[in-house]
Amino acid sequence: MSEARAARLEAKVEEQALDLLLVGELVNVRYMTGFGGTNGACICGQGTRIFLTDFRYTERAESEVEGWEVVTVTDDWLGGIADRLDGRVGFEDDHTSVRTLEKLRDKISGGTELVAAGGAVEALRRVKDEAELAAIAAAAELADEVWRWSIERGLRGRSEREVAAAAEARMRELGSEPSFETIVAAGPHGALPHAEPGDRVIEDGDLVVFDMGAKLDGYCSDGTRTFACGEPSEAARDVYEVVRAAQEAALEAVRAGAGGEAVDAAAREPISAAGHGERFGHGLGHGVGLEVHEAPRLSQRSEDELAAGEVVTVEPGVYIPGELGVRIEDLVVVTDDGHSNLSGLPKTLEIVA
Amino acid sequence: MSEARAARLEAKVEEQALDLLLVGELVNVRYMTGFGGTNGACICGQGTRIFLTDFRYTERAESEVEGWEVVTVTDDWLGGIADRLDGRVGFEDDHTSVRTLEKLRDKISGGTELVAAGGAVEALRRVKDEAELAAIAAAAELADEVWRWSIERGLRGRSEREVAAAAEARMRELGSEPSFETIVAAGPHGALPHAEPGDRVIEDGDLVVFDMGAKLDGYCSDGTRTFACGEPSEAARDVYEVVRAAQEAALEAVRAGAGGEAVDAAAREPISAAGHGERFGHGLGHGVGLEVHEAPRLSQRSEDELAAGEVVTVEPGVYIPGELGVRIEDLVVVTDDGHSNLSGLPKTLEIVA
Repeated sequence: MSEARAARLEAKVEEQALDLLLVGELVNVRYMTGFGGTNGACICGQGTRIFLTDFRYTERAESEVEGWEVVTVTDDWLGGIADRLDGRVGFEDDHTSVRTLEKLRDKISGGTELVAAGGAVEALRRVKDEAELAAIAAAAELADEVWRWSIERGLRGRSEREVAAAAEARMRELGSEPSFETIVAAGPHGALPHAEPGDRVIEDGDLVVFDMGAKLDGYCSDGTRTFACGEPSEAARDVYEVVRAAQEAALEAVRAGAGGEAVDAAAREPISAAGHGERFGHGLGHGVGLEVHEAPRLSQRSEDELAAGEVVTVEPGVYIPGELGVRIEDLVVVTDDGHSNLSGLPKTLEIVA
Repeated sequence: MSEARAARLEAKVEEQALDLLLVGELVNVRYMTGFGGTNGACICGQGTRIFLTDFRYTERAESEVEGWEVVTVTDDWLGGIADRLDGRVGFEDDHTSVRTLEKLRDKISGGTELVAAGGAVEALRRVKDEAELAAIAAAAELADEVWRWSIERGLRGRSEREVAAAAEARMRELGSEPSFETIVAAGPHGALPHAEPGDRVIEDGDLVVFDMGAKLDGYCSDGTRTFACGEPSEAARDVYEVVRAAQEAALEAVRAGAGGEAVDAAAREPISAAGHGERFGHGLGHGVGLEVHEAPRLSQRSEDELAAGEVVTVEPGVYIPGELGVRIEDLVVVTDDGHSNLSGLPKTLEIVA
């Protein structure tokens, strides 16, 4: 697996007329080499597979990293990297600080040229292989279990913070960890798309936006359900159904070859038709993998085109300031003729005690 | 408080002959403005106190950020920042990616010059104020409680992973969270200074390196104790006593005005004298605050000088490959004539069931 990825990266290196590519962003390094520690870099090119770390991680790297020469740099980290660069070398300009680049420039030999070339590994990461899909599916399934457990315990009379903390503790008991800070936003708080769970006690009649993800073997899930605590108002139900229809319409639009902008538009149309166009103030979705937000994007300004094997969220929402919010989010695998849904929870409005 | 910090930063801006300083690193932004969300930046200069965020955080910023004009940028984040820059503007070159700087350069007006000026806020962060010291002390006390709880439950027969997970769960029950991944490394694993807790079951005769920190109100603690599971060998006891003596010697050397290199040397001498010089392969300590690793550094290459009010770890270790490791780490506040120790656990070798 590691070598298949390296070969794909090598092809990108050649496409860009580079001799070598230096990868220093840790998630990218992990993807390329399997290394899970906190200090590492790799250098890839024709016939070149070098992984670098420091003494703390030599032993770990030797057990985790296959198909790359493991080099332990002592003392001068950037110097150790620079010694192994030659020719036209791409670096990750989106992850390299101005200061680090300057220091690296001071250490490279005269024949070496550093060229901005960020995004190559992120592009490879978009399409997931079988093992990655299995890990993401398992994380999504675990999160589903935590939602079920949470609503069985009930929402009424508990604070947002309490519900969120209990869900995260449950996730950990099940051998996972949160892939981001769990959001539980009740009543008017639901109208803040990135509300932090607070002391608000969930009351009868509240809609509760519950956005959560699990992380398993390094891979993330991401999903949202909006529950009703007790019987919701007619108006709340109406908003819910608009979002549900929008979410279904967007799912229908997902398939290999579809544009990120077009899929976003598929959700935006029914929301606008219902008069809530201004109340869906974020993009429809994003890729999920080793990071909970990664390429591609589904949004009004996306230029991405979906490909089979990508994993994306589909998460329209309507937020009515001072009143309520609704968001419904599934995690799906893009396929040639549609999608396969990793989220197993129903989307009819669930009334919870 | 926020304005006192801004005034100190403004003085640094003037020292460096800058008109403005752009701060974008989130921990630095939090320190300067109190903002705890995940997208924000601030601009400081004579008479200038601008805080920028996006629509998701406007409400939050208005409640958290005092003394700074809160600006919500819609659509074009870097453009919104660029519009508010003028003259000679410092930026954090150690936290700004090459790509971001380039994009920002494209957006600034002709009269604006961007100058590398990283480290200014980090320098302010070194000396803690009373509220910060109280938060760190509370985090350290909470961690002490978790160690006591952990050793009361016993170590023998439990895996490293189990002990670490239980300690982290306990930390969360007490309203805190880990400030880094807890290390529990038993027997020969203790010789890997950054071992991840694994399936190794702790056995009679193992020394167990237990390195842990809590986070409370954004502030971190960090500490290590090495426990003996059952009666240790004579050789293990000897190593323990060497490290303990080294740790005491280093604590003696801590005071305002002492050099980071000299304090490190105070610990290194007794370890070398005992013939373990090559087995203490890391620096003696580091600053702790909003981040678990921050300035100053105590190490063989440190050029830092300690000042009263800084909070640093003092953590010598000896690691004998294939056999055992010992590390003893206190968290201390530097004072004019010495230190005040925030770690409340005894340092005599504790024998645990």
